[in-house]
Amino acid sequence: MAELKIISVVMAAGASTRMRSPLSKLLHPLLGYSIIERAWNQASFISSDVCMIIGHQRDEIKKSLEAYWQASGHLEGKKCLWVVQDPPLGTGDALKKALSVLEKESDEAQVFIMGGDAVLLRPTTLKDFFQNHFQTKSVLSFLSAHFQPNNSYGRVVRDSQGNVQKIVEAKNASPEQLQITEINAGFYLCSLGLLREAISKITANAKTAEFYLTDAIEYARGQNLLVTAAVLMDATESLGINNQEDLFMARRVLQNRINQRWMIEGVRMDDPSSTWIDEAVEIDVPAHLEMGVQLRGHTKIQSGVRVGSYSIVEDSVLAADSVIEAFSHLKQAQVGAESQVGPFARLRAGTNLAEKVKIGNFVEVKKSSFARGAKANHLSYIGDTQIGEDSNIGAGTITCNYDGYDKHKTLIGKNVFIGSNSSLVAPVELGDGAVVGAGSVITANLPAHSLGLARSDQKVLNEGGKKFREKRQKSSKFES
Amino acid sequence: MAELKIISVVMAAGASTRMRSPLSKLLHPLLGYSIIERAWNQASFISSDVCMIIGHQRDEIKKSLEAYWQASGHLEGKKCLWVVQDPPLGTGDALKKALSVLEKESDEAQVFIMGGDAVLLRPTTLKDFFQNHFQTKSVLSFLSAHFQPNNSYGRVVRDSQGNVQKIVEAKNASPEQLQITEINAGFYLCSLGLLREAISKITANAKTAEFYLTDAIEYARGQNLLVTAAVLMDATESLGINNQEDLFMARRVLQNRINQRWMIEGVRMDDPSSTWIDEAVEIDVPAHLEMGVQLRGHTKIQSGVRVGSYSIVEDSVLAADSVIEAFSHLKQAQVGAESQVGPFARLRAGTNLAEKVKIGNFVEVKKSSFARGAKANHLSYIGDTQIGEDSNIGAGTITCNYDGYDKHKTLIGKNVFIGSNSSLVAPVELGDGAVVGAGSVITANLPAHSLGLARSDQKVLNEGGKKFREKRQKSSKFES
Amino acid sequence: MAELKIISVVMAAGASTRMRSPLSKLLHPLLGYSIIERAWNQASFISSDVCMIIGHQRDEIKKSLEAYWQASGHLEGKKCLWVVQDPPLGTGDALKKALSVLEKESDEAQVFIMGGDAVLLRPTTLKDFFQNHFQTKSVLSFLSAHFQPNNSYGRVVRDSQGNVQKIVEAKNASPEQLQITEINAGFYLCSLGLLREAISKITANAKTAEFYLTDAIEYARGQNLLVTAAVLMDATESLGINNQEDLFMARRVLQNRINQRWMIEGVRMDDPSSTWIDEAVEIDVPAHLEMGVQLRGHTKIQSGVRVGSYSIVEDSVLAADSVIEAFSHLKQAQVGAESQVGPFARLRAGTNLAEKVKIGNFVEVKKSSFARGAKANHLSYIGDTQIGEDSNIGAGTITCNYDGYDKHKTLIGKNVFIGSNSSLVAPVELGDGAVVGAGSVITANLPAHSLGLARSDQKVLNEGGKKFREKRQKSSKFES
Repeated sequence: MAELKIISVVMAAGASTRMRSPLSKLLHPLLGYSIIERAWNQASFISSDVCMIIGHQRDEIKKSLEAYWQASGHLEGKKCLWVVQDPPLGTGDALKKALSVLEKESDEAQVFIMGGDAVLLRPTTLKDFFQNHFQTKSVLSFLSAHFQPNNSYGRVVRDSQGNVQKIVEAKNASPEQLQITEINAGFYLCSLGLLREAISKITANAKTAEFYLTDAIEYARGQNLLVTAAVLMDATESLGINNQEDLFMARRVLQNRINQRWMIEGVRMDDPSSTWIDEAVEIDVPAHLEMGVQLRGHTKIQSGVRVGSYSIVEDSVLAADSVIEAFSHLKQAQVGAESQVGPFARLRAGTNLAEKVKIGNFVEVKKSSFARGAKANHLSYIGDTQIGEDSNIGAGTITCNYDGYDKHKTLIGKNVFIGSNSSLVAPVELGDGAVVGAGSVITANLPAHSLGLARSDQKVLNEGGKKFREKRQKSSKFES
Repeated sequence: MAELKIISVVMAAGASTRMRSPLSKLLHPLLGYSIIERAWNQASFISSDVCMIIGHQRDEIKKSLEAYWQASGHLEGKKCLWVVQDPPLGTGDALKKALSVLEKESDEAQVFIMGGDAVLLRPTTLKDFFQNHFQTKSVLSFLSAHFQPNNSYGRVVRDSQGNVQKIVEAKNASPEQLQITEINAGFYLCSLGLLREAISKITANAKTAEFYLTDAIEYARGQNLLVTAAVLMDATESLGINNQEDLFMARRVLQNRINQRWMIEGVRMDDPSSTWIDEAVEIDVPAHLEMGVQLRGHTKIQSGVRVGSYSIVEDSVLAADSVIEAFSHLKQAQVGAESQVGPFARLRAGTNLAEKVKIGNFVEVKKSSFARGAKANHLSYIGDTQIGEDSNIGAGTITCNYDGYDKHKTLIGKNVFIGSNSSLVAPVELGDGAVVGAGSVITANLPAHSLGLARSDQKVLNEGGKKFREKRQKSSKFES
Repeated sequence: MAELKIISVVMAAGASTRMRSPLSKLLHPLLGYSIIERAWNQASFISSDVCMIIGHQRDEIKKSLEAYWQASGHLEGKKCLWVVQDPPLGTGDALKKALSVLEKESDEAQVFIMGGDAVLLRPTTLKDFFQNHFQTKSVLSFLSAHFQPNNSYGRVVRDSQGNVQKIVEAKNASPEQLQITEINAGFYLCSLGLLREAISKITANAKTAEFYLTDAIEYARGQNLLVTAAVLMDATESLGINNQEDLFMARRVLQNRINQRWMIEGVRMDDPSSTWIDEAVEIDVPAHLEMGVQLRGHTKIQSGVRVGSYSIVEDSVLAADSVIEAFSHLKQAQVGAESQVGPFARLRAGTNLAEKVKIGNFVEVKKSSFARGAKANHLSYIGDTQIGEDSNIGAGTITCNYDGYDKHKTLIGKNVFIGSNSSLVAPVELGDGAVVGAGSVITANLPAHSLGLARSDQKVLNEGGKKFREKRQKSSKFES
């Protein structure tokens, strides 16, 4: 038994029409991984050879998995056998096609069969299922679950000793059988030999006979071979994804697992039911996530971090003791230790904040770095800019990085002070310790420690305000 | 039976004190329609004549329904009979008042009676209820539902054959009767003749006798006439709205129905439990709504649209393949095909974006149009402005449309490039291809293809920054 | 019985390792109060003397409670006896330590014992529990609750007459006892005398004997004394907080209570399940809270207020008929009657708005006051500023309150009109009726009714835009 080979067969050829989407249901995302990626992970968890039955959108599915393997390295030590089934004539036909590429495998090899859209099995469930199969020396095992009677799943019919006899599809079930709460969850494990035998015997019986996977159970029982149904303690693991509602249900099941795991790890969540955490996110504790936080993609959070309400953090790194205040939007950003961001801050791709940086409200940062202690606290746009230590960017400062054709760089040294409402017309360089007067438009470089001003002297017209009002009042067409 | 007339009676006279609101509970909104509008729709679904019993805030209720009919055309082919009941002496009294305006109707006419605050019946439920009434040839039918025993609703008492005998109010019920789980849901259908007879007989019995609607059941049974209770499969349909908690419950029930319907239609929702969709919203699939999205009023969404997390879209149109990023706030705005809006964008009434327009973060647009390909990506206020094709509005641009008295217009041609932090003092016109230098205050028109500048030359004071710091450091009272 | 003394003992010495936080679990916040503050309130609700058994982080806990008493006055008329238990050797040992400081108390005194982390008892529950204890003349009462069988709580074993016999810990329970659904909720009330006796007898039995609180029950039954278990109707009241998941559960239980109470009071909530209201918040009805609103700390809301979706209001006052639009962020701010704030507004500490003030989108206000009717509608930063009646702050206005060293004040009189994109360099004063031209940098005071301008004249270079483009096009490295 030590050298037993397990081969997975994933049914991924269906047309997924009930999803009502131009995108195959298998390519829909589910907390950071597509359904097909999750199917691959589940199928390859114990077996090294995975047979993927594809049909509808097969090129897209193949490409998508190949890209996933490249990025994740999850093909290493594994083998994927692509099998095309087109048109999709059902799982029996798919299985026959799978067997044709497994001709060289021995009858003792075990085949694990699953739907490509049923990806909620826990690793521990799979392990127990496999172990039980081998310990009971079953020729065929399948997972079952208990559901309320009013459902359309196949019923598991057991004899008086509790031994599985067969699966009866709901449409063929007698009224008594319909009362059976144990249903077929759709995951099978059986020897390749039995599968070969059952298919050849059943389809030989009559020209028109179609083979159903569940027929193999009756076949095996007819040979007096042991068939075992392992009952899922948590019926949600059997969920298949056929429409948008299923997709949400699956997300909720997985999200509950992820969030519960992080809470037990020590993550404080004000409201896990409104907290989105993708599967690949990493969090060091202590960490505090306020209501409605979203952590997406490969975000990493170091210890001591707080993320404020409704903030969205995607593919970003938040270093130790940094704080993201409410309503912030981060994507591909690095936030240094003890830095403070938000509320209402937007950090776009290429933002790199060092330690103790402050980015305040209504500030957008793109492809820019802030050195230790630098600040931009209010209403600014900082793009394609490098800012030195302890520099202060005044409220309303805009880096004019775009001239309608090219993007240009702004270089700001250490200890620079930029007055409010300034415009820095790139390319431009401000030396260490330079000061820019409020409201200036800086178009040329500033030497270190210089003062740059580009604004007019103030003129005061006494009674000018009064005259302005009198004039306006006369011409005014409406008060608003 | 073909010419059977059905008349609805809606009990809408109550004072709704438990709502603790200056606004009648019937005027509270419920996913885009007020409760009284929903009551009207439910009552007029099968019958063409609706008798509205009003009392508390009757003028407001009348006005509100009249405005609704005008806007929706939902009075067409229908008749509303207003009956004033003041003071509100209960449903028996209300019914007597209703009968007085129905004097010319025949005894064979059927009366459907409902509370004005019980508006969660599904159309299919109503149809089945009516059909069953006629098929069973009942003189009186009512809807019942199964509830947990500890409730205060009237119990449905049936005999050993399962025939309805009477309804016993909870306060009058015996301990055994209190264990009955079938309760009166409060919707009745009976012949006008029976109603007339029951009222005249019961109130004649004793001078002080008050008539209760449920008495009609016992009366009919006394005459050996058939009374039928049709059990609601979904007990939530019977919910009446008496306080703020009920109002929320009703919203949740309706929201679940709406969201489930849209998911089955193919709308992808990351989290339907946090997604608000008003009843009148229209969505073409595919569409993707992220967490916490609100679609309100008469919003229309064409196919291929994605609405980002927490965005609020009210009475707006999002054309095909447009994207609204997170934290955006749209009201009475038109977004063209393939346009991109947000995050943190605010589109106010009168915003009209053509195709492929981009509105970025911290940008407010009001009564303005953007032609194809025009952009305002950062920190801008655009009001009363017309912008031509492919023009680019730099970060921090403000249209100064208000002089304290009037709002003025800004006209911007095609291919105009406005440098950052510019102010456009309206009324002003910028010709095609004009360029405005960063930080300029434009007070006069710019001819096509001209360059407008209104800013000072840059002065650099060497060591000026250093001197500034030394001076400030001396006078500084505190470091902050 | 009139002079019966009740002494509470709170077990607050544990190490709370499962919280996985550097902060003791008792110092974690729970809807505006820390767990230890809630424990104090619960313990001191009926008794005037509270014995706090502390160990882990005892200094922090002591300091925190002392600060709470100072701020709230909740120590008045009460006495707190601090008892240190270090190392934490269990509740029996803690109780012995408590008894040593209660030596002078009479045997008739009653002791209420609770865990410091079990703070969800309703006041009515406590009252009923105490009353029942005295009415039944029990020597020992404890609270029990019904749970699903698969739990790890101690089972309440009753005899055939229903009298409590003992509590059996789950690990010591027989398979039959494990089926008992009534569990020990962990709150006890018993006479000091019994406690003294039980401890001395039980620990004398054997040198190694450890005393468990539940042993006292068996001891009392052995003496044929009455022990009563009062069953909690709502099992969630027994919840103890041991990890982050429990902390969230406790918040949800309390939040449901708070939100339901406010709805019954007449607060309209679009979605109570996403609405956060701290315990100390005060609301006058009518009030309308949209989805995802957070009211924190000591926020007070007067009648007629609406708070828009996702807005966060902390330690602030919203006066009558004021409106906070969506995505606003208020902290320590005062909003005057009929004022309008947001969407996307941020009011920081020291913001003081009088009546009919308007603060619009992307506006930040800090330590500033707005007099009646003043407005700042778009994209502004107003800090350390006083603004007079009916003044209008144009879009993009920045108060330059910081020079890198000090914060300076800006004083703006009545009826002042500030043009868009202006910078006000503080310290600066603008007299009543002054007008500032758009785009001006105001560095010196403006007399009343004067007009201040600090901007350049506009230059127009015909064909300058065209030339600019030709030049840029030539040098352009990439189109973006």
